[in-house]
Amino acid sequence: MSLLKDFEWRHAAKAYDPTKKISQEDLNSILEAARLAPTSSGMQPFRVLVIENQELKEKLKAGSLNPDCMVDCSHILVFAAWTDYTNEKVDEMYNKISDERDQPRGRYDRYTDRLKEHLSNQTREEHHILASRQSYLGLGFALAQAATLRIDSTPAEGFDHDLIDEVLNLKEMGLKSVTLLYLGYSDAERDWLKPMKKVRTDFNDFVIYPQ
Amino acid sequence: MSLLKDFEWRHAAKAYDPTKKISQEDLNSILEAARLAPTSSGMQPFRVLVIENQELKEKLKAGSLNPDCMVDCSHILVFAAWTDYTNEKVDEMYNKISDERDQPRGRYDRYTDRLKEHLSNQTREEHHILASRQSYLGLGFALAQAATLRIDSTPAEGFDHDLIDEVLNLKEMGLKSVTLLYLGYSDAERDWLKPMKKVRTDFNDFVIYPQ
Repeated sequence: MSLLKDFEWRHAAKAYDPTKKISQEDLNSILEAARLAPTSSGMQPFRVLVIENQELKEKLKAGSLNPDCMVDCSHILVFAAWTDYTNEKVDEMYNKISDERDQPRGRYDRYTDRLKEHLSNQTREEHHILASRQSYLGLGFALAQAATLRIDSTPAEGFDHDLIDEVLNLKEMGLKSVTLLYLGYSDAERDWLKPMKKVRTDFNDFVIYPQ
Repeated sequence: MSLLKDFEWRHAAKAYDPTKKISQEDLNSILEAARLAPTSSGMQPFRVLVIENQELKEKLKAGSLNPDCMVDCSHILVFAAWTDYTNEKVDEMYNKISDERDQPRGRYDRYTDRLKEHLSNQTREEHHILASRQSYLGLGFALAQAATLRIDSTPAEGFDHDLIDEVLNLKEMGLKSVTLLYLGYSDAERDWLKPMKKVRTDFNDFVIYPQ
């Protein structure tokens, strides 16, 4: 039951202690969790940008709903998803998969041909929606790992995507920002949410057993 | 590092042993993990349906890309997101939050007024996209909890949403299916993926340090 205890422990921190930094080892383990998350067809259509530099944080904060968190936290992770899927990206991933498994390239052609056909029937906007969804699995795994380390975190939406994308040159990387994840150590005096009860939809409303 | 080991252990099972069932206690802990996941504005705009009945699985399998997994697994979880947000749903959640925290109702009005205003500027389709994304956080937490219990799982997209929604009467519940999660114990002989190396984008490609 220990992971459930970690999940009960975590909350969306509302204020960070600016003097406390997380270690590179802990940071790497959180990034590794995101990297290990499953994604649709194993394509991993997102990347994680790491921001620690205070000057860069200052440039980003105008785009944030919680600029103090952004500036005071130890690290900001930006989950950014592909603007689109391409046949080249599919081939690149599946060549890597077959290479690492000592299989001949082309081993997964039947599967990737179907995948390419499927993707070719979607718009670029649909590609980005698909990619964005996958990034939430990475975000979920990162949140879980941070919680096991008792590192506070705040997942954030509702920011100014255009500003963040521009400051970080995401367009040139074929990416668009989806979510932010602030990491660090909560400021006990200013984090009003920390002592409060975690409220969730009741189990029996959340879970449905169809008849 | 133990959660990372769990994440390394897990894979998308390709075949299940139909004779092995997961216990109600384990199932409940996986559902509880999904329930504890954070969601945008704490709204939890999704539900999880649990399917164990073989007759019901048979009705659903025509809609699945991996019908054998669906039939042989112990339980299918259907992550289904709200078709839309409404002011009533916002009030219901924030009344529950203030009630459970022994705060006066209306405590969060400033916040919820802004949230309602924001949501009123979005289409129902945008609402469902937003809700669907949140359900991936629940899926991520459920996958993590299953992995800690060494329960095999398969997250699935690419199914026939209309069929699943109709069989489960999701429309009447204001829900639409987003993902499936098969749970159970892998069949060692038929699960070809289990012994294979897990392949991921290299850490240094996945993680970006902006200059």
